[in-house]
Amino acid sequence: MSNDAVLEQLRRCLPASSLITGEHAVRPFETDGLTAIRERPWAVALPDDVEQVRAVLRICRQNDVPVVTRGAGTGLSGGARPLRNGLLLAMTKMNRIKEVDLDACTATVEPGVTNLSISQAVRQHNLYYAPDPSSQIACSIGGNVAENSGGVHCLKYGLTVHNVLGLRIETFEGDELVLGSKCLEQAGLDWLAVMIGSEGMLGVVTEVTVKLLPLPEAKRVLLASFRAVQDAGDAVGAIIAAGIVPAGLEMMDSPAIRAAEDFAAAGYPRDAAAILLCELDGTEEEVEADARRMQAVLAAHRADVRVASDEAERERLWKGRKSAFPAMGRIAPDYYCMDGTIPRRALAEVLGAIAAFASEYQLRVANVFHAGDGNLHPLILYDANQPGELHRAEELGRRILGLCVQVGGTVTGEHGVGVEKLDPMCEQFTAAELAQFHRLKAALDPAGLMNPGKAIPTLAHCAELGGMHVHGGRLPHPELERL
Amino acid sequence: MSNDAVLEQLRRCLPASSLITGEHAVRPFETDGLTAIRERPWAVALPDDVEQVRAVLRICRQNDVPVVTRGAGTGLSGGARPLRNGLLLAMTKMNRIKEVDLDACTATVEPGVTNLSISQAVRQHNLYYAPDPSSQIACSIGGNVAENSGGVHCLKYGLTVHNVLGLRIETFEGDELVLGSKCLEQAGLDWLAVMIGSEGMLGVVTEVTVKLLPLPEAKRVLLASFRAVQDAGDAVGAIIAAGIVPAGLEMMDSPAIRAAEDFAAAGYPRDAAAILLCELDGTEEEVEADARRMQAVLAAHRADVRVASDEAERERLWKGRKSAFPAMGRIAPDYYCMDGTIPRRALAEVLGAIAAFASEYQLRVANVFHAGDGNLHPLILYDANQPGELHRAEELGRRILGLCVQVGGTVTGEHGVGVEKLDPMCEQFTAAELAQFHRLKAALDPAGLMNPGKAIPTLAHCAELGGMHVHGGRLPHPELERL
Repeated sequence: MSNDAVLEQLRRCLPASSLITGEHAVRPFETDGLTAIRERPWAVALPDDVEQVRAVLRICRQNDVPVVTRGAGTGLSGGARPLRNGLLLAMTKMNRIKEVDLDACTATVEPGVTNLSISQAVRQHNLYYAPDPSSQIACSIGGNVAENSGGVHCLKYGLTVHNVLGLRIETFEGDELVLGSKCLEQAGLDWLAVMIGSEGMLGVVTEVTVKLLPLPEAKRVLLASFRAVQDAGDAVGAIIAAGIVPAGLEMMDSPAIRAAEDFAAAGYPRDAAAILLCELDGTEEEVEADARRMQAVLAAHRADVRVASDEAERERLWKGRKSAFPAMGRIAPDYYCMDGTIPRRALAEVLGAIAAFASEYQLRVANVFHAGDGNLHPLILYDANQPGELHRAEELGRRILGLCVQVGGTVTGEHGVGVEKLDPMCEQFTAAELAQFHRLKAALDPAGLMNPGKAIPTLAHCAELGGMHVHGGRLPHPELERL
Repeated sequence: MSNDAVLEQLRRCLPASSLITGEHAVRPFETDGLTAIRERPWAVALPDDVEQVRAVLRICRQNDVPVVTRGAGTGLSGGARPLRNGLLLAMTKMNRIKEVDLDACTATVEPGVTNLSISQAVRQHNLYYAPDPSSQIACSIGGNVAENSGGVHCLKYGLTVHNVLGLRIETFEGDELVLGSKCLEQAGLDWLAVMIGSEGMLGVVTEVTVKLLPLPEAKRVLLASFRAVQDAGDAVGAIIAAGIVPAGLEMMDSPAIRAAEDFAAAGYPRDAAAILLCELDGTEEEVEADARRMQAVLAAHRADVRVASDEAERERLWKGRKSAFPAMGRIAPDYYCMDGTIPRRALAEVLGAIAAFASEYQLRVANVFHAGDGNLHPLILYDANQPGELHRAEELGRRILGLCVQVGGTVTGEHGVGVEKLDPMCEQFTAAELAQFHRLKAALDPAGLMNPGKAIPTLAHCAELGGMHVHGGRLPHPELERL
């Protein structure tokens, strides 16, 4: 069937304003948050309801049109990059909060609802939705499900997978799957967990049931300054080993501290080698008790500790952390934000290695990250107008992710794989494991038309790269052997 | 190839003491904890290491021999019931603790290690493994993974799926999969979650990495007595809604209270309609604060509350709960322990309906269960020597599980599906959903020889039963319409 005939079919099942075509009109959709990679979709559909989603998928199935599903487009790994021969299914119009169940402490919402608006809708009941990616004002819960998003508080409260109780999914084959429920326990194989983080490759999320938590009664923020990065890294492990689970445990290194302080005047010590920003929450009594124990652990690791004395100081300390990314704009024209995860005990070792890589590639790197769960965000500073710098930044990024795998970690933390990390996936997984991922995808999408080419590299792709396969820290790759 | 020739191959790769054949010798393996269902396996292999597991699977694959994997055999749903034409792969000899990582707070163990021995091995470091099924002294961690086991403390600390960070799996096809790691975040589709609770249908677990938690500094137990079941049910929801997460929140109804009190003299009020046993743990300050808040919630629901004044009283109160199952032996010759889960708000309604069912079937039912997460354990009392009573007990059990589905719950809590609950699975899942489960199994086990016939009913089986398919509480089944 011709493209025009397929468009005609789509027009018949969608309101006129919900189908966007034409080179100029589709331009706002050509990229997600990974703006270095752009491609204009053949057409964009913005369904209002499940019936329209089903109709669109049926037409695409019958005409072999690939489908890329997109939420708010804030993703950082290119998971929602469109295909020029594919339909972009944008879920933003489906943004109703369908039910708040105060007995079960759940909210059931459409996928286009923004992360923050769930918490806003239930604040009157003293509840909130815990995962808080930094894009929470804009990002959609459907996108959070697709990427298994995290945030500052996921050390204590978990990733999206730990906070979603149920999903309604439309498959490319035309089935509707109702996964999970308001109960903790489930019968059958755990499709729900598979869906979360599957980056739109298995089906279209049309409804999400999330867990709501009571707003904490009290919060306290401690700022710990260290003269040595090693001490800060060791303190992170010691805090967790002491049984304290902070709501947030963020680390910044010297370049990040100085940039943030210049930008936001948060009151950070400009001469520290590293700082930890620790947030405790709970009842007044819990917070008081944990703060005492945490101060003892920090003192044992040679930290200077300051406790925010009031709400204004607490907000100022956080403002520095939140300004760290924009602050980079004052010291370099461009930056590349990496996302990888390592075991906590390797923190100091890996930060040292990143510094060595940076000097090798003649680039600066600032580190601002979720230290408690070992989720690194090295910011590689570069100038896209200097020939070769972008390329060197990408090479350096790849070295850092290889290192994450080498020390027993993983190539992604909370940003997903998308198109950005297809190469590093070849380093982390064996051919057999990648083949299993493909078989799992085929179980729900035998035609392979749901977001093709994302998240799981083909074996051929990995073979072209030299196919590194690693487990247990043994990485047979010469470039990483040097470490 | 003849059976004898296959045995000869197995003998070549296993020590003599690790291969058991012959009708009498295999008899101890003919059942797991669901003793009503028995079948003698063709042969039993007890491998010492991964090499032997691989060799056994290779021989079975080459000769089309089905494989049933078994841990300690304490499972209650028949998941490890052998097949007369199949090999039983008993993992009990693989019981080494391979590594305790005090930085990451993890233990890496072989599958035959018992649940309790993990906690015993790390007690010296003030750590423990949280999930505590009542069989924890005997059950193996591999079996816990297969059934996604829970326990009294899973309300606060989660099921097995929330406490396992990594698995090593041998597939029937001969692949080794290394899933998860010591990090919270993972790249790729979530095979780890799928494996947990997959009841031996996807592969053989050869290594488990579990999360260890610090032993709580303080514990406190409260006993709340109610004159009305409705008040007890409402109090459960109110406790959770108040943001208190007890380590355990157990409920017993009047028949269970009386039986336990006669048996264990725990000090329970014999005239109460229901009791709640609430355990709080944490730091002294947390426990103190939570206990105060919990007493206020309980008082608002007309409870008489007693706080255990010392360790001896705390243990006596728990002893009553733990004796409830054996106590049934004094009031009825046999009992059938059900396992289903419902939303907390339906507690009182469902207990009322169970009582009505019991009188319809002229049987007694005692309820002792994990109220906090809505995980019911109705104990149906019967006498196997009275003709028809076992059958009526089974019918009543099925009615109760149908009711769990109807109110938005699920047909299993922490005991798995096994062979016991194949019929109720037809009520909970649609044909499309069951087909998806089968496709997921086929992705790892295309030959269908790993624990065939368990956990996921065939569509033909469901069709024979009349194929009830239900979602959102609408159950098109006349028997349940009456409620």
